[in-house]
Amino acid sequence: MNRDFLSCEIYYYPKKLEIGEKIIIKNEEAKHILKVMRHKIGDKIKLTNGLGYEYEVLIKKIEKKNLIGEVLNKKFLPREPTIKITLASSPLKGENTEIILAKATELGIGGFIPVYFQNTVVKLNENKLKRLKKISIASLKTSAGTILPEIYKPITFEELVNNFFSYDLVLLAYENSDTKLANIINKNKKNNIKNILLIIGPEGGFTLKEIKIAEEKGANLFTLGKRRLRSETAGIVAISLILYEFNNI
Amino acid sequence: MNRDFLSCEIYYYPKKLEIGEKIIIKNEEAKHILKVMRHKIGDKIKLTNGLGYEYEVLIKKIEKKNLIGEVLNKKFLPREPTIKITLASSPLKGENTEIILAKATELGIGGFIPVYFQNTVVKLNENKLKRLKKISIASLKTSAGTILPEIYKPITFEELVNNFFSYDLVLLAYENSDTKLANIINKNKKNNIKNILLIIGPEGGFTLKEIKIAEEKGANLFTLGKRRLRSETAGIVAISLILYEFNNI
Repeated sequence: MNRDFLSCEIYYYPKKLEIGEKIIIKNEEAKHILKVMRHKIGDKIKLTNGLGYEYEVLIKKIEKKNLIGEVLNKKFLPREPTIKITLASSPLKGENTEIILAKATELGIGGFIPVYFQNTVVKLNENKLKRLKKISIASLKTSAGTILPEIYKPITFEELVNNFFSYDLVLLAYENSDTKLANIINKNKKNNIKNILLIIGPEGGFTLKEIKIAEEKGANLFTLGKRRLRSETAGIVAISLILYEFNNI
Repeated sequence: MNRDFLSCEIYYYPKKLEIGEKIIIKNEEAKHILKVMRHKIGDKIKLTNGLGYEYEVLIKKIEKKNLIGEVLNKKFLPREPTIKITLASSPLKGENTEIILAKATELGIGGFIPVYFQNTVVKLNENKLKRLKKISIASLKTSAGTILPEIYKPITFEELVNNFFSYDLVLLAYENSDTKLANIINKNKKNNIKNILLIIGPEGGFTLKEIKIAEEKGANLFTLGKRRLRSETAGIVAISLILYEFNNI
């Protein structure tokens, strides 16, 4: 891994590019590069397309606050975990949906599914979903990540359950479970797990019915310890432990 | 462990109490119990003194917005980890000092030392320290914790280093380390570790000089993975992994 790179800034440009291609960067991203970071003509900057590619771009011109650049180099360099974690979390009160998504993006999740559980109180509208995408892009940049998690439209718990089959392993953090994550993962290690669904409940917790249904459909309940964690904390802790168990930390 | 308790609220009363003792709860805490949670005379509530004790208290009277109660029962019931983690972290920008402390309290740290590193930009004054204590108490309550982490006055990095000897193990999360936390902990497992110092750097990172000094004085550098984590995220992830390695999660 190129450690130097971690100390460089990286910008988001959501397209696949080729060497020699001319690009225009506009609006906020251009402002950030030119005004905040004070880059000049002749400087080289790094872009990521959020799909695993990093581009080295030369700033050729600045026209009407837009940056015109040329792609000098491209690399496929995903720093993302070797497993894909999809976080299915209830929308949370206050800024906590933003916090859980921002931290999960830093840690390198592949997808975020807002789920309406029985005890979910917060609903997400289009504007809020757009804001979540912005937060996620900002987080991707601070963490020098190269793959932007897909943010799905909210679904019900029933829809989530009906989709369990698309994952190699379904994990659900449950305060009344005594099962260690390590036990579940060790039991499943031979199954070549690549694609994990992690379920984190709302502030009011899962209902017993939800737990029963999830278990019947194959979810593995696990503990995050004796203490009561807030939902957003539970999400961050659970992702950390999964990455650790799969040797990504 | 009594799981029922996790679904109850718990209040903070910073004194050691005996069964039969009469107590008065005033101000914000009384308001929270009586107005927000709508408790009435005859209700039983739970208090923690932040030193491991939980008390069952009967509400006997309400006088001028104060709650007068009687201690019915006491239990020594620390839900805190079996290891003591002291988090030594740079004060962070914006609300991030509050976030790292709140989440670390939820997870059950024993102490919080704000440290001024070379690259620390934020300084903590008395007011800010008071606010941190409030945040920590609020977090203790949500997590049904019973031991309030001690919040120390800010010290310099040099003072921190001179204090390494008071810990069984000193861990430092460093982005250029390749050492797995598991390796350090396995190597030290026979040393009966109870008391861990965890060092998390400022936004700008540690200086090479700080890293050199810390290593010379016995700090164990470890990795949090390939991605660049924000300081507050690094703190939460590191505490999660330490608790996990010591079977507290």
